[in-house]
Amino acid sequence: MLPLALYIEHTLLKPDATFDDISKHCLQANEFKFIGVCINPSWLELAHKILIPEIKRVTVIGFPLGATSSEAKAAETKWCVEAGADEIDMVLSIGQFKSNLFSYVREDIKAVVQAAKNKPVKVIIETGLLTKTEIATASGLVIESGAQYVKTCTGFSPGQATPEDIALIRHTVGAKALIKASGGIRTPEAALALIQAGANRLGTSQGPALCAGQKVGPAGAGY
Amino acid sequence: MLPLALYIEHTLLKPDATFDDISKHCLQANEFKFIGVCINPSWLELAHKILIPEIKRVTVIGFPLGATSSEAKAAETKWCVEAGADEIDMVLSIGQFKSNLFSYVREDIKAVVQAAKNKPVKVIIETGLLTKTEIATASGLVIESGAQYVKTCTGFSPGQATPEDIALIRHTVGAKALIKASGGIRTPEAALALIQAGANRLGTSQGPALCAGQKVGPAGAGY
Repeated sequence: MLPLALYIEHTLLKPDATFDDISKHCLQANEFKFIGVCINPSWLELAHKILIPEIKRVTVIGFPLGATSSEAKAAETKWCVEAGADEIDMVLSIGQFKSNLFSYVREDIKAVVQAAKNKPVKVIIETGLLTKTEIATASGLVIESGAQYVKTCTGFSPGQATPEDIALIRHTVGAKALIKASGGIRTPEAALALIQAGANRLGTSQGPALCAGQKVGPAGAGY
Repeated sequence: MLPLALYIEHTLLKPDATFDDISKHCLQANEFKFIGVCINPSWLELAHKILIPEIKRVTVIGFPLGATSSEAKAAETKWCVEAGADEIDMVLSIGQFKSNLFSYVREDIKAVVQAAKNKPVKVIIETGLLTKTEIATASGLVIESGAQYVKTCTGFSPGQATPEDIALIRHTVGAKALIKASGGIRTPEAALALIQAGANRLGTSQGPALCAGQKVGPAGAGY
């Protein structure tokens, strides 16, 4: 069996997560040796203090709507990198993408990639709001713009990671990008199916249960 | 009957709203002469071009989770004011508030108030995630921090504006703040009840129907 923990970004993005919730979440990541922890920017400094060095500090930008200005996303990214972020998960400018304003979308991603300096950037394309053709087009824009990962879902809009979408993204990006599957990962079998379809990372709040081989119930907002 | 349009901020915050959607939305605001339009930052420049001068350009900061850094919220605010925003609707640092980190919460609001220069700031306290006691405490922090409005809901978390919560907020803030009710306003009667309870503004995507005296169905995310 695959060592699932090496794929899992232990995720807690609920707006009402407290100091204690975040602290426990990070201690749990230390215990399970997850590849990373994914949290909101305002908790980055706390997480940085608690996490052991080998766990990646992942945070989110323009989250979860992707609808703020590119300048705001870049400023947010700059602050996060200074606060200790190792990886940056930004949300695509979904509305501009749907309006075929592809030049805007590319510049938006590039602004974050530049602000992230050499830290990997993942672009959440929000598959649940896109058609299959749009998923392929958006994935192409992500690699053209210099980001390292295509990521599926925020967990705050409809839709979840499916092996079919992961395979479609992998078919589109080939070896030019990595893929993070996120949203609705409920069983170890589902997690393995996403990895087999091409996912390099799994974003989930259910890492401990998944590693223990348990099926978990439906999650609330924030996967 | 009250002229409802003078209370309504015509709201469109869905992540997949397109150029055409935003354009139509602003033209509709011109037609109905709503007090304002509330849109995401990335569409502010477009809205600014379409809207007639007397309609307020309202935008959202740290939206809808409120969980980014204060520095990011301030940078986002600064950009929005330069892009033509007349009013700034920020989201409270809900997690820090729930952790009793009140000094953090105050400084977070103050950072946005300062970046907004003399533009009014509304603080969305997300009533659906708070107890009644927390609603009163949060409202107090908003006025202590120099913001002009307490606003109820983002529309992206559970909860909606109720006359009971508006009355509680009004009881707490007295004449020291204005109140924006937002989330789940479905009928003209509900709108009037919120105004009678103390609301100075109504945030809704259903303004045209409400002004026409129609009851509207349940909205999707983004009220």
